[in-house]
Amino acid sequence: MTVRFDQISIMGVGLLGGAVGLAAKKAGVANRVAGYCRRPEAARAAVEAGAVDECHTDASKVAAGSELVVLCTGPETVPQIAAEIAEGLSEAAIVTDVASVKSRVVAGCTEALGKKARFVGSHPLAGSEKRGVENAAEFSLSGAVCVVTPTRSTDAVALETVREFWAALGLEVLELSPEEHDARLARTSHLPHMVAAALCALLKPGDEPFCATGFRDATRVATGDPAMWTEIALANREALAAELYRLAKRLQGAADLLTAADRDAFRKFLESGSEPRSELMGRGQA
Amino acid sequence: MTVRFDQISIMGVGLLGGAVGLAAKKAGVANRVAGYCRRPEAARAAVEAGAVDECHTDASKVAAGSELVVLCTGPETVPQIAAEIAEGLSEAAIVTDVASVKSRVVAGCTEALGKKARFVGSHPLAGSEKRGVENAAEFSLSGAVCVVTPTRSTDAVALETVREFWAALGLEVLELSPEEHDARLARTSHLPHMVAAALCALLKPGDEPFCATGFRDATRVATGDPAMWTEIALANREALAAELYRLAKRLQGAADLLTAADRDAFRKFLESGSEPRSELMGRGQA
Repeated sequence: MTVRFDQISIMGVGLLGGAVGLAAKKAGVANRVAGYCRRPEAARAAVEAGAVDECHTDASKVAAGSELVVLCTGPETVPQIAAEIAEGLSEAAIVTDVASVKSRVVAGCTEALGKKARFVGSHPLAGSEKRGVENAAEFSLSGAVCVVTPTRSTDAVALETVREFWAALGLEVLELSPEEHDARLARTSHLPHMVAAALCALLKPGDEPFCATGFRDATRVATGDPAMWTEIALANREALAAELYRLAKRLQGAADLLTAADRDAFRKFLESGSEPRSELMGRGQA
Repeated sequence: MTVRFDQISIMGVGLLGGAVGLAAKKAGVANRVAGYCRRPEAARAAVEAGAVDECHTDASKVAAGSELVVLCTGPETVPQIAAEIAEGLSEAAIVTDVASVKSRVVAGCTEALGKKARFVGSHPLAGSEKRGVENAAEFSLSGAVCVVTPTRSTDAVALETVREFWAALGLEVLELSPEEHDARLARTSHLPHMVAAALCALLKPGDEPFCATGFRDATRVATGDPAMWTEIALANREALAAELYRLAKRLQGAADLLTAADRDAFRKFLESGSEPRSELMGRGQA
């Protein structure tokens, strides 16, 4: 064990925040895990689920006594909470987050916190279409990749501490700049969500019995929370729009090849996808 | 047990043909399950896997003694094998298939068989990105939907026999015209395959570690055999091209909304997908 805190705070104890709290307690990285939820009933549910030792609705008060604060909300709320807690933070405090978009979040938090805390952006690549702290226990972070996104102004000790925190929870820590993170995740995470939504929206009445495993796998992420995914998509809108245009062009090209019954070119279109996908199978689960 | 044959033949004993053979033997619907494979080594593998009782490389000879012949190859080969076996079939023979496209296949088989046999198109909606008879045992047909696609000229007794055959193997039998089948499956099966290939082809070097569960689920089908999926896509090219254009237009629309940062309209785009997808979760597996 290389990292140990007296108190860490989870700001927003939903599915992911809850999973972070549970994993932190299990790993024994803190004497006390405190939680913040906006709504009193959510705070009660967080304690009942065992995700945090205590949970309150006053963000500033929760964060004040913590050495490590983990902001576990959507990309738009993360900088808002950072601004709310900034004043009360101790001088040694380190702040990180779990948002799926990094450029805007890192810039927003850095501005909101000023010199009040050392901020390091994080993104654990662990998603689920389920929601709420009551599902956190069956949502394992262990083995997932966590991207940390330092900038030129990131404090080196804070970066190392945040890396050690995620590693202690069993995640594989990788480093990208916020911009590179957003460009890559636009392709590997945000785009598949948009496509899943679009595929489902194309269904016509009576199609349901004919949606077998292939369709269900391809569209599972479409059940994610539309409000959260609207936040994510807008926070990464430049990179995501570019990928959406690239994909649309590629699909139109495939349709043109079918219309022309151009067998060789169409087969190349399919092969250009099956080869990289087969390579992925070498990396962990299929 | 309402249906029982002296001999059934599986023409093409790969993953799906093998699964049909294994299920037929398990259900005890035939005294003897014969197989045809083009290559001698494939025929040996089919027998070794226990998928058929015997397996030969002479299609006409295998089919000649059968009351039910199940053509288990791709949509282009199915009518070719039908033509090859037509002459030798007994008068009472019923022929069906398992191809993922029906209009062209049903027309091709009906023409190839003429009055030599009664043909009924079938499509068990059971897919896997695995291949080969050696994986057939872990590939369960039970509980899957099987679409049968009669036309106005389909023999009523043959239709009922084929329905009973699939039901005896544990499949839920539904009926569609060949044209309606192809229109619906373009959306629910063929399109997700095309999208998965396109998503994988968009990846850039170094993206792989950032492909988490969402991407992997969405693109699992992209590892399917490109040769087989080229056959399927071309055999259903009109309907599939139309869906590809619809999807491309929808994705461009989403990109336009992001570029305009139109929050409300973008959220509606996501909701239009999450609602039908959540309804699907009521139907069996997520």
